[in-house]
Amino acid sequence: MTLEDLLAVARGDRPADVVLTNVRLVDVFSGEVLPTDLALAGGKVAGFGSGPGRGYEGKETVDLGGRFVAPGLIDAHVHIESSLVRPAEFARAVVPGGVTTVVTDPHEIANVCGLDGMRYMLRDAAGVPLEVFVNASSCVPATDLGTAGAALDAEALATLLDEPRVLGLAEVMNFPGVVHGDPAVLAKLRAFAGRVLDGHAPGLSGKALNAYASSGISSDHEATTVEEAREKLRLGITVLLREATNAHNLRDLLPLVDPWTEPSLCFATDDRVPADLLDEGSIDHMVRVAVAEGIEPMAALRMATLNPARHYRLADRGALVPGRRADLVVFSDLADFRAEEVWVGGVKVAEGGRALFTATPSDASVARDTVDVDPDALDFRIASPETGGGAIRVIGAIPDQLLTEHLTVEPKVEDGLLVADPERDLLEIAVVERHSGSGRTGLGFIRGFGLKHGALAGTFAHDHHNLVVIGADRTSMETAARAVIGAGGGLAVAEGDRVVEVLPLPVAGLMSEEPVEQVRATMDRLLAAARDLGSPLHDPFMAMSFVTLEVIPSLKITDRGLVDVDKFELVPLFA
Amino acid sequence: MTLEDLLAVARGDRPADVVLTNVRLVDVFSGEVLPTDLALAGGKVAGFGSGPGRGYEGKETVDLGGRFVAPGLIDAHVHIESSLVRPAEFARAVVPGGVTTVVTDPHEIANVCGLDGMRYMLRDAAGVPLEVFVNASSCVPATDLGTAGAALDAEALATLLDEPRVLGLAEVMNFPGVVHGDPAVLAKLRAFAGRVLDGHAPGLSGKALNAYASSGISSDHEATTVEEAREKLRLGITVLLREATNAHNLRDLLPLVDPWTEPSLCFATDDRVPADLLDEGSIDHMVRVAVAEGIEPMAALRMATLNPARHYRLADRGALVPGRRADLVVFSDLADFRAEEVWVGGVKVAEGGRALFTATPSDASVARDTVDVDPDALDFRIASPETGGGAIRVIGAIPDQLLTEHLTVEPKVEDGLLVADPERDLLEIAVVERHSGSGRTGLGFIRGFGLKHGALAGTFAHDHHNLVVIGADRTSMETAARAVIGAGGGLAVAEGDRVVEVLPLPVAGLMSEEPVEQVRATMDRLLAAARDLGSPLHDPFMAMSFVTLEVIPSLKITDRGLVDVDKFELVPLFA
Repeated sequence: MTLEDLLAVARGDRPADVVLTNVRLVDVFSGEVLPTDLALAGGKVAGFGSGPGRGYEGKETVDLGGRFVAPGLIDAHVHIESSLVRPAEFARAVVPGGVTTVVTDPHEIANVCGLDGMRYMLRDAAGVPLEVFVNASSCVPATDLGTAGAALDAEALATLLDEPRVLGLAEVMNFPGVVHGDPAVLAKLRAFAGRVLDGHAPGLSGKALNAYASSGISSDHEATTVEEAREKLRLGITVLLREATNAHNLRDLLPLVDPWTEPSLCFATDDRVPADLLDEGSIDHMVRVAVAEGIEPMAALRMATLNPARHYRLADRGALVPGRRADLVVFSDLADFRAEEVWVGGVKVAEGGRALFTATPSDASVARDTVDVDPDALDFRIASPETGGGAIRVIGAIPDQLLTEHLTVEPKVEDGLLVADPERDLLEIAVVERHSGSGRTGLGFIRGFGLKHGALAGTFAHDHHNLVVIGADRTSMETAARAVIGAGGGLAVAEGDRVVEVLPLPVAGLMSEEPVEQVRATMDRLLAAARDLGSPLHDPFMAMSFVTLEVIPSLKITDRGLVDVDKFELVPLFA
Repeated sequence: MTLEDLLAVARGDRPADVVLTNVRLVDVFSGEVLPTDLALAGGKVAGFGSGPGRGYEGKETVDLGGRFVAPGLIDAHVHIESSLVRPAEFARAVVPGGVTTVVTDPHEIANVCGLDGMRYMLRDAAGVPLEVFVNASSCVPATDLGTAGAALDAEALATLLDEPRVLGLAEVMNFPGVVHGDPAVLAKLRAFAGRVLDGHAPGLSGKALNAYASSGISSDHEATTVEEAREKLRLGITVLLREATNAHNLRDLLPLVDPWTEPSLCFATDDRVPADLLDEGSIDHMVRVAVAEGIEPMAALRMATLNPARHYRLADRGALVPGRRADLVVFSDLADFRAEEVWVGGVKVAEGGRALFTATPSDASVARDTVDVDPDALDFRIASPETGGGAIRVIGAIPDQLLTEHLTVEPKVEDGLLVADPERDLLEIAVVERHSGSGRTGLGFIRGFGLKHGALAGTFAHDHHNLVVIGADRTSMETAARAVIGAGGGLAVAEGDRVVEVLPLPVAGLMSEEPVEQVRATMDRLLAAARDLGSPLHDPFMAMSFVTLEVIPSLKITDRGLVDVDKFELVPLFA
């Protein structure tokens, strides 16, 4: 629709496509709820008003019977890959809850497939009524302390600048690189000068945080305490309150919300697994939690709509005002936000929690056959030094946190090899490079996964997405790893020689091509299998996928070995 | 200073240029006042903090003794020409009060000198520590109902897009053109797509306002009531609260301010004369008034700093956080904002109300000799129809408003000519085209200026800036007009054959090249002379300059004659 046509509808000279009557409009600018009619045309809001001289005629009229209408929700930062389904299927999972725009960082697939992977994500989303924007993944690979399938320097990233759905630079996780002025990192910031630069600076404070902020990076979603978040906010950093599957920060951070800070706060899900998306929801879940915890509904809705639109300079959305997109949510209770209808671009696309659209797969050939590991060459043995090595470094997993502890533990030795000791919750962990066929394997031990028997394996392992295996014995580990290799990537549970369950993730070893409901069912069986083997974790696969992320403290592991994140260097197994 | 250098200072590896110690920092993001030290480097904020491990070393240290430090103030919309001095002199007037950035619409000079005039304004400001941005003047000429010295279509305006200090499109005053989809107006909006489009829609409401908003125009500074402002704000229009010399809207609009609306509100001065700038101030005056009227100081300061920076996407200012400009104001009392020191780009540029810089004139040759009127051809006679014409239309000036009334009055006739009748406050008004030498003169009558004798004349007359003359008799009118022509443009008061006072404005007939204090003194004498002649108005020259503005209701006058603004057409003198 041309601007001329939209103006004609707005001024009442031409009928709207649809008039929603009897609306209680959530006006995020004035903070009011306005009883009105809402005229839509060409996928946009043409105007609102009711009564003599102010109401609108429409080709179609829908009486909403006094229900509330809010702008479509915006997820300020999400890795779609964590849903284990492709973008179009992800849309089926989140749009019915009211999410209509997501700002994504496709850095999982970028670490496997590079720029081709990022473009695949946009292509797959093109056919569904979810507005997917991309921030260019700034940290591929995350560091040189592990091996990824691609390396994107400033020049490569700059080729994305002309893509209409690329906004800026995604979370700059290499915060030491920023603080210390690493030339390769600054080159990326400069390549995206004038665009939004998103941050990721867990625990950064004081002068180092000042330096990080002075670089022009303007957001962060890693704060875990009000104090940390407030220090960042004081420096002009937009704080994205996060509620991920493996990082539940929302309730802890809500005390930060007040009328002064609210305009600088947004909601983000970061990483959520299918079960959480389908059972709890996405940003809609965060709105509900916030309101239940005492945040004013209008504030919660602004953090989910207007604020992220402002932060990302998406002037065409985030509010239901003339000229902006007609992306909206119909609901009945301000105190319990439940999407009854979701409209995107002026068309109803979900109702009663169900998507009214299908998710036709796009061509994923650029992202297939990405697990280049010889199943017969796996070797998870760790030799004990002849003289005895003393205590070893052990990764301490913390439930519901991405952070780990750096433990020191006496190892168990059998036949000259260090082995898992499930009785002390000491499991072996292996990370096998899967991109180039090198077979390089980092080996170590981990506490907190609780398996009494068997093993878990997966190719979804931040950020290098190598093949990670955690187990109570080497046979189980090899069985699980071979199951994943055989599936072309995925997640598996094994016990001894037996494969208990596999979720194939053939798209980059990260995403299924099955419907989200089916992926969720398989995932449920995987989790049940892991629980049966003794794991007390809510989602040991999600936890496992972050144990390999060498940019979040304290001790992590890659195909190159153990990483002391605080020192940002590889460290030997023996302490 | 490179980013590398700034990072080194921020993380404490290199001394700051200056450390301001003992600061109470106004943190506009968190809404807090923070006791801290503030480190400046390369004209920017490097960081803040104090105490062990958090404080900064500086090459220079300035102890502010616990005083407050706020970001430099931003004027969201101002026509510098209304100060009657060039930009560099304007800076001397406003910077000492704490204004460090102004978003200007140079449409007065643009109406006289076109693009050359706009570029002159930027050039003249380049040497002073006031950050001057330009929005491209969208309405040159304002309409075809009068004659300007230039005509800027979309193509001409688009040549400004690459100028680094051009932000977007300035107030689109032709609101009927927007609402009705005038192709020439829409072409301008399209030329500036993706930039900020500023608005100007006095009294617009309902569907017409929906249409205006749907065009993408995102601000307005013409609201005179809370109801009008609120309707605009609900539509996503950023409301610029205005306190101009001839439009005192601030106090009326302050009830609009609440925690929900505040982020969408800014302060703007629009047009202020030298005396108001020097005696009251600029945006600093608005902060004081707002706080005195009960607005929280933090809210007032945000409307004067962070909010306009966000609206205009000036991500490098509006807050004192790392990486942003070190433009700041030192003051002692949150309840009575008085700038004691002003720093711009990390350098102290004003202290105790006095500028510490000079305003060297730039080359103004493009804007000289712009009054092309033959002083011997002036003819202000208005013939009375032989049969008697009946009642005439009379412009009704309203004190402190840009709006006028459309009155109908019986004229006074002498010797077959209609003449002024000061006893009934009925003065003659003439507008003489001055750009092309056509001599075309619009004639009419006006009420509200109150002259008992004599006449006023001036070439500062929105927006065409033709020669306007208001008088109690034709001889005085001719004398005043000739004085202005002789000065190459300016303002004058005359009585009979005697020129009482002249303020030459040789730059485009709009601006003096003298210091602002001297211009103000001459202006004071002009105003005293006008008062001596009977005018009760605060500033009859400012009022006169808006009587010719045919885009603000109700009855105005141009060189083409009387304009009924509500009908947007020329109308005859006789009603």
